[in-house]
Amino acid sequence: MKKHETSLPPVPLIALLTDFGADEYVGVVKGVMASIWQGARFVDLCHTVTAHNVREGAWILLQAYRYFPPGTLFLAVVDPGVGTERAAVAVESRRYRWVGPDNGLLFPAVEDDGRGRIVNLRVPAQASSTFHGRDVFAPAAARWAAGETLETLGEERRVPLLPLRFYRRGHCGEIVRVDHFGNLVTPLPPPATAPAAPRVARVTLLKRIAGRWKAAAGPARARWVRTYGDAADGELVVLVGSSGTLEVSRVGASAAEVLGARSGDRLCIQPL
Amino acid sequence: MKKHETSLPPVPLIALLTDFGADEYVGVVKGVMASIWQGARFVDLCHTVTAHNVREGAWILLQAYRYFPPGTLFLAVVDPGVGTERAAVAVESRRYRWVGPDNGLLFPAVEDDGRGRIVNLRVPAQASSTFHGRDVFAPAAARWAAGETLETLGEERRVPLLPLRFYRRGHCGEIVRVDHFGNLVTPLPPPATAPAAPRVARVTLLKRIAGRWKAAAGPARARWVRTYGDAADGELVVLVGSSGTLEVSRVGASAAEVLGARSGDRLCIQPL
Amino acid sequence: MKKHETSLPPVPLIALLTDFGADEYVGVVKGVMASIWQGARFVDLCHTVTAHNVREGAWILLQAYRYFPPGTLFLAVVDPGVGTERAAVAVESRRYRWVGPDNGLLFPAVEDDGRGRIVNLRVPAQASSTFHGRDVFAPAAARWAAGETLETLGEERRVPLLPLRFYRRGHCGEIVRVDHFGNLVTPLPPPATAPAAPRVARVTLLKRIAGRWKAAAGPARARWVRTYGDAADGELVVLVGSSGTLEVSRVGASAAEVLGARSGDRLCIQPL
Repeated sequence: MKKHETSLPPVPLIALLTDFGADEYVGVVKGVMASIWQGARFVDLCHTVTAHNVREGAWILLQAYRYFPPGTLFLAVVDPGVGTERAAVAVESRRYRWVGPDNGLLFPAVEDDGRGRIVNLRVPAQASSTFHGRDVFAPAAARWAAGETLETLGEERRVPLLPLRFYRRGHCGEIVRVDHFGNLVTPLPPPATAPAAPRVARVTLLKRIAGRWKAAAGPARARWVRTYGDAADGELVVLVGSSGTLEVSRVGASAAEVLGARSGDRLCIQPL
Repeated sequence: MKKHETSLPPVPLIALLTDFGADEYVGVVKGVMASIWQGARFVDLCHTVTAHNVREGAWILLQAYRYFPPGTLFLAVVDPGVGTERAAVAVESRRYRWVGPDNGLLFPAVEDDGRGRIVNLRVPAQASSTFHGRDVFAPAAARWAAGETLETLGEERRVPLLPLRFYRRGHCGEIVRVDHFGNLVTPLPPPATAPAAPRVARVTLLKRIAGRWKAAAGPARARWVRTYGDAADGELVVLVGSSGTLEVSRVGASAAEVLGARSGDRLCIQPL
Repeated sequence: MKKHETSLPPVPLIALLTDFGADEYVGVVKGVMASIWQGARFVDLCHTVTAHNVREGAWILLQAYRYFPPGTLFLAVVDPGVGTERAAVAVESRRYRWVGPDNGLLFPAVEDDGRGRIVNLRVPAQASSTFHGRDVFAPAAARWAAGETLETLGEERRVPLLPLRFYRRGHCGEIVRVDHFGNLVTPLPPPATAPAAPRVARVTLLKRIAGRWKAAAGPARARWVRTYGDAADGELVVLVGSSGTLEVSRVGASAAEVLGARSGDRLCIQPL
C-alpha cells in the first residue's frame, strides 16, 4: 500500500452522497457538522442512490469526484451494515478526503485517485445503532474538515479498503446506474474504432434469476448516436454518456421502464 | 408562561422544513431571504413532509432541532390554513428561533427546548393568500436573522402556542413518520427492561375508519433487533430507531407498503 | 434590440433550474463551478421541471426570478437539444444574469426584466455531447460569476433569443405548471372585476389529440375562492395563485390526478 504525505489543501466543500432520499436525515447530518464547524459549506452530490445499493453509490462517486475542488471531503453513506462489525473509515486519496463505511462504497474512487492513509473511526458509546451518518460519520467529517488531523479521529490501519469492482466482460457489463430519465449506464468503454463507429447495436438485458444470468429482454436493435437529439422520439439508442461509457437510452421515454431494467442487471451491447 | 431574556447567539443557519416538496417554492423562499439578508446560509431540514400533515412536520422538528447549532432559526411551513385566521408567529425558545404558522407545528419542539417570547407576525396587505411562506414567513425570518429585534416583526402576545401532542397509550402509539425506506416511526419509548429486552413482539396496525380505530393489519410477529443488519432480508422487526423511540421496519423492503400503513395510523407493539 | 450598459452588482448567488431531478448531475455542476470560483453560493430554484419541458421551465423562471437579489446569475438547463446546433448563451437583463440553452427557456423572464447583451458560448472541443450543463454552461457561469467579462465567454450576437410565449385566449390558457400538490397553474389573469368576483366557474380540460384540441374532462363546476382554506375537503376550486394568475385546485387532493391533466394541456375557466 502506497502512502501519501498529507499535502491536501483546506476543505473547500463537504460533498454528500447517501441513500437517505429527501427525508430529514441529510438535514440532521448537516446540522451536526455545522455545530462542530461553523465554516462548513455543503454540496449535495446525490441522495437518491437506490436504498442499500452500495455499487450504485460507488459508481456515482467514481464518476463525480474529479469535478470537485481538490481538498473536498466526501461524506458518503450507503450503509446496509450500519451498527454491525463493518469498519467506519476516514481516508485520504491523492487530492481528496473521504469518510464513510468500509463496504466497497469508497474503493473505486479512492483507488482511481490514488489511495493514501486510512483510519478506523471510533464509534462513540452513545451512538445510535441505526444512524451512524449522524453519530459517527458526520462528527468525524466535521472535525477533520475543521482542521483536526486524521490521527485524532481513530487508529491508522494498514489493511486496504474492501474492494469493489464493476462487472464487464466483452460486450456485456452491469447496469451501474439508472438515472431519472431512465437512461441505463454501463461501465463499458466506447468502441476503439470511434471514427468508424458502428451504426447499429443489438442490446440484450440479462437478469439474475435463481442464481443464473438469463436474457430478460431483447435482443433489440438500437441505433448508435452521438447525442439524444440525433434520435427520433421513442427510439432506442446507444451512446457514449457523460461518464465516457456506453449508455442505453430511449429518447423522450424511459429505457429502464420499457426494458424492465434495474440497477444491478446486465446489458450486452453487441455492435452489428 | 415562563419568559426568557434574549441571549441567543447570532443566527448561524436558517434551517427549512416545509411540505413544498421539490418544487420551486423552496427556492423562491430562499431568494426572498437572500434579498433581505445577504449573509443568509440555508440548510434544508426536510421538504417531504406529507402535504398538509402538521403532525408529521412537528415530529421531525422535535427530533431534529437539537442537532443544529444554537441560535439556528427554523423556518417551518406546513400550513393548510394559509390565508385564513390562524396566526403567523416568530418564537424564541431557550436556544433556538422559530418562524411559522401557529397550528401546532412548532409546539412540541419549542416546548421541549423551553418556550420564550412569541410575536404575532403582521401580514402585509399585498401578501398572496396562498403563499405566506414567500410573503410573510420568509421576510420576517430574514429580518430577524439579519439582526432586527423580535419586537419589530409584530406584537408580542401572552397566549401560548396552539398545543399538539403525539398519541401514545400503553403499547400503542401513532405513526408519526414514514421515511423513504418505509420504516414506521412511533413515539413509543423503548422498554425499560433494556438489558433483558423482549425478543419478539406482536405488531398490529390500526386505522381510523368511520370515526373508530380498527385493526387493519396484523397482529404480525416481529423480532426485536438492535439494528437493521441483525435481521434477515424481508423480516419484520422492531427496533429503537435513531429518534430513541420504537420503529417497525422490514429489512430490504418497505414496512409501510407491506402493512399498508400511513402517517397518522396507529401501531400497537406488544412484547411477547 | 435595446442595449444595456453593464451595471449589474457582483453575483450574490447562483440560482439553478434544471430538469435533472434529484440525480447526481446537479451536484456535479456545482462541483465544477466551485472548482472555478471558490466564492460560489448556490440556491436550487427547481430541478423537477418535467424532463425536456422547456415551457414549464420558462414559466418557473418568469415567476421566480424577481424574488432573487439583483445580480443573481440564473443557470438554467432544460435542454432536449443538447449537443445539436441550438446555441448556448450568456445573457444580461436589466437586473440579472442568465446562462443556458437558447431554446425559449430564458426568453420570457429576460424579456420581462428587459433584455440586454447576448453572447454565444463557445463549446470546448472535449465537451460531452450529452452533458453541456457540466461542460459548457457551468464553466461559463462560474467564470462570469467570478468576475470575468461577458466578452471573454464568447462572441456577442445581435440576434435576439428564440421566443417562447404562453398560450392564452379568452377564458382558455395552457397549463404551465403542475405542482406537487397537483395544482394546475395557468397564465390566465384574474377577472378585472375583482371586487364583484364571480362565485362559480365552469372548468374544462382540453388535450391535444391527433393534432386537435378536444375536451378531455369537464365541464366541471368549480367554486371561486380566495385561498385553499376557504374550500371544503375534496372540492374543486378556482383561485388566484401565488403567481397572480388563475389556478385550478382540489383541496386535500390532486386536481391533476382527478382531471387527468398534464403540463401543456389547456384549461378553459368560464365564470358563471
